[in-house]
Amino acid sequence: MSEKKWAFEDFTIGLVIDLGTKHVTAEEIIEFASEFDAQPMHLDEEAGKASILGGLSASGWHTCCMFMRMMCDAFLLDSTSQGSPGIDYTRWKKPVLAGDTLSATSTVTARRESASRPNLGFATVTHEMRNQHGEIVAEMQNTGMFLKRNAGATA
Amino acid sequence: MSEKKWAFEDFTIGLVIDLGTKHVTAEEIIEFASEFDAQPMHLDEEAGKASILGGLSASGWHTCCMFMRMMCDAFLLDSTSQGSPGIDYTRWKKPVLAGDTLSATSTVTARRESASRPNLGFATVTHEMRNQHGEIVAEMQNTGMFLKRNAGATA
Repeated sequence: MSEKKWAFEDFTIGLVIDLGTKHVTAEEIIEFASEFDAQPMHLDEEAGKASILGGLSASGWHTCCMFMRMMCDAFLLDSTSQGSPGIDYTRWKKPVLAGDTLSATSTVTARRESASRPNLGFATVTHEMRNQHGEIVAEMQNTGMFLKRNAGATA
Repeated sequence: MSEKKWAFEDFTIGLVIDLGTKHVTAEEIIEFASEFDAQPMHLDEEAGKASILGGLSASGWHTCCMFMRMMCDAFLLDSTSQGSPGIDYTRWKKPVLAGDTLSATSTVTARRESASRPNLGFATVTHEMRNQHGEIVAEMQNTGMFLKRNAGATA
């Protein structure tokens, strides 16, 4: 696993990882909603304006999926990740509207070595997504499993 | 809102809603992963077999999105839903593999009327997804906001 940039050892408490930015288009919002969450405010500008969301807005699940793509591109695909048992919480704080540009960070808040698998560790990470106005649109937390850097020799 | 089948009054504690079934194809798994979660075990059968997931497996987020579609089709699109502030937890318990047929239920576990908006109530719902072997593949919980049946007259 030594060829991966990110291994368990790199996820130190307090580390903040910049996940870059993502521009959200109306087409993407509608395409996602048509497949997974066909509520009117995710499909139609007028319906969005008439809703409490105030405009054509991304499904909360779409926001999560865009976050996942940002995390993949920023570090996960170049890491020793062994997946995650779930998401501790997801909070949709503000609507994500067509035309928004999202940014995100992941902050390591806890870490521990696996008791049963000496080549593995757990990193708890809290995530924040903001829009171009600096407003938090989503917060999440999960615990990821990562192999240690020299795990290939000891696994 | 009286034309909708499901309003706040219908979400009584203990109610179990059947969300039907969803067959999962390899093509869907790969298409979703290519866009949102391009980890090898979600893109390639051999990589999946080599992973702890044991085969080409859906992204956990894809599982959430398939659940959302099932919930939309079963009741949400025919309800007075006003959205949800987030997800209390998501647990991915077992891999969702290409060829699986998922089923799901939503159980109402708590409810309360809004103090600030008399036309609205909150229903807390726990969700379970199972595969064709009866194994739980995912568990979730969230609180949805629903207008009351006669809210149109009082909103």
